[in-house]
Amino acid sequence: MNHRIVIVGGGFGGLYAAKGLARSQASVTLVDRRNFHLFQPLLYQVATGGLSPGEIASPLRHVLHSRNTSVWLAEVTDIEVAAHKLILGDRQLPYDTLVLAAGAENFYFGHDKWEPVAPGLKSIEDATEMRRRILSAFEAAEMEPDTQKRRAWLTFVLIGGGPTGVELAGALSEIANDTLKHDFRSIDPRESQILLFEGGDRILAAFPPSLSEAAERSLIKLGVRPRTKAMATGIDADGVTVRIDGAEQRIASKTVLWAAGVKPSPLGAMLRARAGVQLDRAGRVIVEPDLSVPGHPEILVIGDMASLNGKDGQPLPGVAPVAMQQGRYVAKLIEKRLRGEKPEPFRYWDKGNLATIGRKAAVADLGVVRFSGFFAWVAWLLIHLLYLVGFQNRFLVLSKWVYDYITRNRGARLITGVKE
Amino acid sequence: MNHRIVIVGGGFGGLYAAKGLARSQASVTLVDRRNFHLFQPLLYQVATGGLSPGEIASPLRHVLHSRNTSVWLAEVTDIEVAAHKLILGDRQLPYDTLVLAAGAENFYFGHDKWEPVAPGLKSIEDATEMRRRILSAFEAAEMEPDTQKRRAWLTFVLIGGGPTGVELAGALSEIANDTLKHDFRSIDPRESQILLFEGGDRILAAFPPSLSEAAERSLIKLGVRPRTKAMATGIDADGVTVRIDGAEQRIASKTVLWAAGVKPSPLGAMLRARAGVQLDRAGRVIVEPDLSVPGHPEILVIGDMASLNGKDGQPLPGVAPVAMQQGRYVAKLIEKRLRGEKPEPFRYWDKGNLATIGRKAAVADLGVVRFSGFFAWVAWLLIHLLYLVGFQNRFLVLSKWVYDYITRNRGARLITGVKE
Repeated sequence: MNHRIVIVGGGFGGLYAAKGLARSQASVTLVDRRNFHLFQPLLYQVATGGLSPGEIASPLRHVLHSRNTSVWLAEVTDIEVAAHKLILGDRQLPYDTLVLAAGAENFYFGHDKWEPVAPGLKSIEDATEMRRRILSAFEAAEMEPDTQKRRAWLTFVLIGGGPTGVELAGALSEIANDTLKHDFRSIDPRESQILLFEGGDRILAAFPPSLSEAAERSLIKLGVRPRTKAMATGIDADGVTVRIDGAEQRIASKTVLWAAGVKPSPLGAMLRARAGVQLDRAGRVIVEPDLSVPGHPEILVIGDMASLNGKDGQPLPGVAPVAMQQGRYVAKLIEKRLRGEKPEPFRYWDKGNLATIGRKAAVADLGVVRFSGFFAWVAWLLIHLLYLVGFQNRFLVLSKWVYDYITRNRGARLITGVKE
Repeated sequence: MNHRIVIVGGGFGGLYAAKGLARSQASVTLVDRRNFHLFQPLLYQVATGGLSPGEIASPLRHVLHSRNTSVWLAEVTDIEVAAHKLILGDRQLPYDTLVLAAGAENFYFGHDKWEPVAPGLKSIEDATEMRRRILSAFEAAEMEPDTQKRRAWLTFVLIGGGPTGVELAGALSEIANDTLKHDFRSIDPRESQILLFEGGDRILAAFPPSLSEAAERSLIKLGVRPRTKAMATGIDADGVTVRIDGAEQRIASKTVLWAAGVKPSPLGAMLRARAGVQLDRAGRVIVEPDLSVPGHPEILVIGDMASLNGKDGQPLPGVAPVAMQQGRYVAKLIEKRLRGEKPEPFRYWDKGNLATIGRKAAVADLGVVRFSGFFAWVAWLLIHLLYLVGFQNRFLVLSKWVYDYITRNRGARLITGVKE
């Protein structure tokens, strides 16, 4: 019988693992709760009405059409480590090699009641919900006669100064200052306030300090007010309480968006309970240099679920390039094992780091070169197009970007998800 | 003070009325519950994964950017006919002329409990829900070991043989026979059954009998099984009971889709209660030849809400061209009234009738010419592109159609709207 490989998760890690095994003699089953691969780096553009969900999602069955590969739309409810079996509700799926690539989800640092009032950005539904809230806030402001209440509708608070928070802030500024400029009669969207709160010392902490400063300057030029060392201590439907320099401050806002934290999939904790693996402080599974789990070489953990130090001794970040390279690596590792070869340990090749801030502004840290501004923005566009899955999506996204760049429009500003 | 025109509804009727008044001296307010105009004739392509919601919807504020026009996102809760005021929850909106263009909604002929098990197709949410059900049915079949249950998952029942039912049936057949052909491992999507039940004598009853026959032949060629004089008498989560030739028959199906009936907006009944207008049997407001309400020349009713006989003595059908022409007409009527001129009565110019059946097949009844097949299909494509609102949408839809035609793919097959 063929060697049976089961991959859990169709994100960057799982998708690149499955694609790397497409020509293998082994049989591959990819399990995901959703029927599509989601290109998460562009999710903020769906949340801000620039792109449609369909343009950044590709049906998994279509992407993985190799004959040795099956796709199961199911949720893992248990792992029987000794029996080499996954439990999916009332079904079982035996494996010879298991690849766990279930990614991460929104994390509110124990404040779970913040979730309904400050949505995060991990799924298509999160993105259309953010879009609904942002656009509805302008609509509510237009209808609101009370000045103070209107101000709360036109105040947008972003919690978290990582790439997602910065990208959302830049896009929000474009919406308020360009896209919606002439759309309303009783309000001027340009009076909106966009506040970005970051708990740490600087925004975009994964970048060198000079680029954090460049990003901050770009944001300020766009009218965003970034604030560092600012911790949210309370969030409710009417606003947010922030601690800045030890003093608490209340900001009235009807739209608070969460970009502050994610935690790995609960499958890591399940693996700890079943196989006794160790988790790091963030809850990620500590893996061997070949990404396998100590004592269980047949279980590989990759992407946001895995904890592995890079050559600088620091844990590898939870970003798409790490997941992609680890996916490709485990595909090769499994093939080598089947041929009886001994594989090299995983090594992350850090090609650099990019974040966009808005129309014509971005920061790029490519190791030897660091730059910001227009050329960083062009680099950002090209790299995202290159990695976007599917020719049709690339074509559609490119044509939308070109069109929206020229017209300053955002066609996908639909308020959906409400029952009529 | 300027003459104040209030239009309720941003469908074809309301949109064309507002556009016709864009250069008027009057001030125009368009009220809708949604922030976008929806191009309903292509909704079935969203329901079947060919197009994304954003491609057939245009933000109303963007389409109606004229300075005399405001858009209110609100729901009409009452009409104070004597005081010339609309009530929108806790807000009021006074009018000098009121245009009611609130369209129609799904109608289950009194069987409201069918709605959750057999969704209709009137909103974006309806369409993504249909898409979710159709795609999930194939996924469930793939995971189902029991042959009989699997068959129920692969049986799709369409209730209603009008254009929507026929278009859905054709698209479903393409999904089963082309798009998903190679996507599954345990099922063959080509084994799906697609059943179309029509209560009347023939499908596409608005067309001449020869075209109904041509449509039926096309459907049969696509593997659809159309059945006329077949009335649904029961629908639940496990299937449908149909009466054919007096005998009841039970069909096990997990996916029943409703395309059998719509009813006009409840604003018609509100107008009867407030202004004593008469409704026809379908619940539409019986209007004067100038589309005004008897006794209230300042209230105009258009589109699916209005009941007016055409020159053949038959009531005008509830289709987009009627609503568009009535919208344009009332815009001119209001302008003429303001200039003190006497307007002509409304006359519908019937340019013909088109329905598509699937890849390369359609029927066209252009009055003097009637044809079916490839050229009818090309005519259908061109006319729908022409009337689609927004240059960007036209470009995106055209490029998707070309791409999907060549590759037989449907990129927007996402199962969304589920909570993770």
